[in-house]
Amino acid sequence: MTTPLRSYVAGRWYTAPDAAAGTVVSDAVTGDPVAVVSSTGLDMGAVLDHATGVGGPALRELTFPQRAALLKALAGYLKERRPEYYALSHRTGATLFDSRFDVDGGIGVLSAYAGIGARELPDDTVLPVDEPHLLGRGGGFVGRHLAVSRPGVAVQINAYNFPVWGMLEKLGPALLAGVPSIVKPATPTAFLTELVVRDVIESGLLPEGALQLVCGSVGDLLDRLGPQDSVAFTGSAATGRRLRGNATVLGEAVRFTVEADSLNCSILGPDAVPGTPEFDLYVAQLVTEMTVKAGQKCTAIRRALVPAGLVAAVVDAVAARLDQVVVGNPTSEGVTMGALAGLAQREHVRTAVRTLAVGARTVIGDPDKVDPVDADPTRGAFLAPVLLVADDPERPEPHHVEAFGPVSTVIGYGSVEGAIAAAARGRGSLASSVVTADPQVARQVVRGLGPWHGRVLVLDRDSAPESTGHGSPMPTLLHGGPGRAGGGAELGGLESVRHHMQTVAVQGSPSVLDAVSR
Amino acid sequence: MTTPLRSYVAGRWYTAPDAAAGTVVSDAVTGDPVAVVSSTGLDMGAVLDHATGVGGPALRELTFPQRAALLKALAGYLKERRPEYYALSHRTGATLFDSRFDVDGGIGVLSAYAGIGARELPDDTVLPVDEPHLLGRGGGFVGRHLAVSRPGVAVQINAYNFPVWGMLEKLGPALLAGVPSIVKPATPTAFLTELVVRDVIESGLLPEGALQLVCGSVGDLLDRLGPQDSVAFTGSAATGRRLRGNATVLGEAVRFTVEADSLNCSILGPDAVPGTPEFDLYVAQLVTEMTVKAGQKCTAIRRALVPAGLVAAVVDAVAARLDQVVVGNPTSEGVTMGALAGLAQREHVRTAVRTLAVGARTVIGDPDKVDPVDADPTRGAFLAPVLLVADDPERPEPHHVEAFGPVSTVIGYGSVEGAIAAAARGRGSLASSVVTADPQVARQVVRGLGPWHGRVLVLDRDSAPESTGHGSPMPTLLHGGPGRAGGGAELGGLESVRHHMQTVAVQGSPSVLDAVSR
Repeated sequence: MTTPLRSYVAGRWYTAPDAAAGTVVSDAVTGDPVAVVSSTGLDMGAVLDHATGVGGPALRELTFPQRAALLKALAGYLKERRPEYYALSHRTGATLFDSRFDVDGGIGVLSAYAGIGARELPDDTVLPVDEPHLLGRGGGFVGRHLAVSRPGVAVQINAYNFPVWGMLEKLGPALLAGVPSIVKPATPTAFLTELVVRDVIESGLLPEGALQLVCGSVGDLLDRLGPQDSVAFTGSAATGRRLRGNATVLGEAVRFTVEADSLNCSILGPDAVPGTPEFDLYVAQLVTEMTVKAGQKCTAIRRALVPAGLVAAVVDAVAARLDQVVVGNPTSEGVTMGALAGLAQREHVRTAVRTLAVGARTVIGDPDKVDPVDADPTRGAFLAPVLLVADDPERPEPHHVEAFGPVSTVIGYGSVEGAIAAAARGRGSLASSVVTADPQVARQVVRGLGPWHGRVLVLDRDSAPESTGHGSPMPTLLHGGPGRAGGGAELGGLESVRHHMQTVAVQGSPSVLDAVSR
Repeated sequence: MTTPLRSYVAGRWYTAPDAAAGTVVSDAVTGDPVAVVSSTGLDMGAVLDHATGVGGPALRELTFPQRAALLKALAGYLKERRPEYYALSHRTGATLFDSRFDVDGGIGVLSAYAGIGARELPDDTVLPVDEPHLLGRGGGFVGRHLAVSRPGVAVQINAYNFPVWGMLEKLGPALLAGVPSIVKPATPTAFLTELVVRDVIESGLLPEGALQLVCGSVGDLLDRLGPQDSVAFTGSAATGRRLRGNATVLGEAVRFTVEADSLNCSILGPDAVPGTPEFDLYVAQLVTEMTVKAGQKCTAIRRALVPAGLVAAVVDAVAARLDQVVVGNPTSEGVTMGALAGLAQREHVRTAVRTLAVGARTVIGDPDKVDPVDADPTRGAFLAPVLLVADDPERPEPHHVEAFGPVSTVIGYGSVEGAIAAAARGRGSLASSVVTADPQVARQVVRGLGPWHGRVLVLDRDSAPESTGHGSPMPTLLHGGPGRAGGGAELGGLESVRHHMQTVAVQGSPSVLDAVSR
C-alpha cells in the first residue's frame, strides 16, 4: 500500500480517513506510486485558531534575536539531515546538483535570516524603522514609524518545483517577524516537504503552532482569513489570479503576494561576439538555466535575446554544450539532467512547445523524443532540452507562452533599444540578465529593464567567478516581479520580514516616543 | 442653465455632448444646482495613450530635483489662488476652517514633496535605495536595489470629502516619481477639483499629459490597465472591494491601493480623569473631530473608548463644548460647522445613526432635527452633532457601522487590555489616538493598537501645543490602515514615491553597479 502523506495541524499528525482514495503521487523517474495525498476532514477553522491562538502568541513573546537564534538552530538541525532529503529528492526527478539548489538553498535562507535577525534587528519585539521626524517648529511633537508583528497567520501555498526552498524561503521571514505559518506544499512533491516538516517538528525547536502543514486541499481556509492574515502564493499566473480574487481576500484586505512563473529573458550584449569571454558566459548560463531542475525554475531563461547577426552562432554554441548533457535517472552515474516532476507536467510542456512552434522553429531537441539513461521514458517524466528560434521577433508566442521545462527560444534583436522593448513584451518577469563587458550597455539595459523586472543580473568576465547566476534568488535581494510575474516581493532581507508586520506611524512628544519605541 | 463640468483629457477640455442630461450636483448649503457632470463620449483608451505616450515620457526626462522644483512652483501658484477655492468650497458645505484642511493642507503636501525631492533624492531619474551588498567572498560580485519609474499611469479615484487635498496628496508623490496621473474626483464636489485643475493647467507648469481630469464615470478605464499602472482609491470599503476585484486589475497585477473610511477610535487613558489637562484635551479633540468638515473625515473619531467610570463625565464635557458649536451657512458670521456634502450623504448618515441606535443610546443631538443659521434645513445638508453611548460594549454596531458625519459613540472599557481589544474590533482603522500622561500606558496602547492602525497619536500636555491632531494625515507619515481601512499606504514621505516605482535588484561587479546606479 502506498503511504498516505500526513498533515501536521493543531499539534498532531493527521491522516485523512479516506487517505487510500487520495491523489496518488508518482515517482518522477520510475512512475511508481510514492504517496497518496488527502486533507479530507481537516477543520481549517481549527488550524487557524491553533496558529493565532497558540503559535502566534508564543512567537511574539520572543525577541528578534531569540527568533534569529531559533532559525540558526533550525538551519543547523536540517543541515545534518541533508542526505535523507537528497535521497528522497531523486524521486521528484532531481539530480544531486538540483537538490543543492532546493535543499541547501532553502537551509541557506534560514541561515541568512538568522543573520539578519541577529545583526539588523533590535533586542525587542518591535522594530523602529526610521528616526523621529519633527512635526512642529518647537520640537515638542514628533513622528516615527514602528513595525509591529501582525497577530495573524501566514498562509504559504508553494509550487512543486522547489519543495524545500519554496517552503523555507517563506517560512524564515515569517518566523523572524513573529508570525505563524500554514504551509501548503504542491501535491506532486509534497512528500519531500512532509519529510522536512517532520524533522522540523521533531527538532522541538519551534514553538508549537508556529508551523502547520496541510498536505492536500486547503479547503475553505482562504474564506476564513481576516485583516491580519497574509497569503503568499507561488505557482501559475492563472491560479494566482483566481486565488487573489477570493471574496474574503478582497473584502478583508488580506495581504496577498503572487510569485508566478514568467517569461524571463537574457540579453547578449552587442559587444559580446564569439571569441569574447562574455559570449561563452552567455551560452554557458543559458544551458545551465535550461537544464538545472530540468528547466523547472520560475526564474529560468525562456527568451534568449541576441543580436540578430549572432543567432546562428548562439544556436551552434548552445548545441555543442547541450550535446554534453546526459538526461536520465538522477541516481545514475554521469546523468546531468533528471526528470520533470511528473507525466502531467511533461504533457503541459509538450503542449506549450507545440504552441511556441507556431511562432518559432525548433532547432535543437524534440519534445516527443527522449532516451533517458537507466529509465523508461514512458514511465519517467523525461524530456530532452528544446531550443527554438523565433525568426520573426514580432510573433507573440515566445513572449507569452511558458514551457515550464528545459525549453528556451532564441530571438534576434536589431538594437539595444529593440532588445529592451522585446524584454518588456513579457509583461513583467522575475529575473533577467544582460551579458556584456560594456558598462554603458549595462546601464542602458538595467534602466530599461528595471520597471519590468524584480532582478537584473549583469554578467561579465569580472563578476563571473563569483556570480550566483541568472536563476538564483538571493535572500538579501528582492524576489518577485511586476505584471505577469504576479507583482509580488519576497526575500529582499528585512523587506520580507516587514511584509509580515504592520508599519504604524506614531506621533507624540519626543520622550513618549522614546518610551514607546524601546 | 447649470454649468457642465469639463474634463481635461488628451490636451484639451472636453464637454460631454449630453452634458445637460448629466448628474446634477447641488450646493450643499442652498440646494441650488451648481454643475452637471457627465463623461459620456470620452475615449478612455485615448486618455491612457496620452498619459503613457506624452505625459510619462516628459516627466521621466526630468530629474528628481527638476520634478521637485515643479512641485514647489505649483504649490506657490495655487497658494496665490486660495481665496477663489475657499469661496467655491463653501458650496460643498465647508467653512473657512474646513477649507484650510482641504486647500491649504493639499498645497502643503505639494510643498512637502517638493522638499523631499530636493533633499532626499539624487540628481538623477533613478533612485538607489540601499548600499551594495556583498554576494561573494571575494568582493567581485555585489547586489543593490534601485527604484525606477514605472512607465504606466496613476489612476486616482478620490472621495468627495476632500476635493483638493484628496487630489494633491495623490498627485504630489506620483509627479515626483515621474508617473502621469488621471484624476477622477467624486461627483458631489468635483466642481472644486475642476477649478483647481483649471489653474494647474493654466499655470503651464506641468508637462502636457502629466495630469488629466475625468469628471464623471471613468467608463472602462480600469479594464484597460496594465502591469505598469496603479489605482489609488479613496472612498467606501464596499466600492474599494468591488474595484479591487476588477478582472484586469487582478489579472495584470495592477497596484491597487484602497484608503477606506474606518471606525477610528480615541482612547482616554485611565490616568486622565476630570481635572487633568489630558481629560480636557481628550474632550476638545473629540469635539473637533466630530465637527471639522461636519465629521466627514476618513480619520474622524467614531469610537470614543473611555474608562467605564468616566463615561458620564465625558458625555457632560462633550455636551458643554458641543453647545458652543453653531451649525449653519458657512458664509455666515459665527457659524462653526457647515453642511454635509449633500442631501444623499445626510440620508446615509441618518440611516447609519438609526442602525447605531440599535446598540447604543443617543445622548446628544437628534439626527432628524437641525436648525441651521441662515439656511433652510430641507434644502441644505445640515445635521446636528450626535453623540451616542454604547452601554453594552459587546454590541457590534459601534465597531462596524460608520456614520460619515458629526457622529461618535462613547464606549466604556474596564482595563487598558480591554480598550486595546475593543479598538481591534473595528477590524483595521486609519488613525487612532490615546490621551494619557502615563508613558507606560502610551507604550502599551501603541504596541497593542499598532497592528490594527496606520497611525497612532499619543496626546498629552507636552505634545498638545504642537500636536497636529488625531485626524490629520501628515505628508511624512504613513496614511492608510489594514483590513477595513483598505490595507493601503499613502504619503509616508519617500514610501509613496517608491509606490510609483519598481524596485529592482541589480547584481554585477562593483564597477558595473556603480556605472548603472549613477
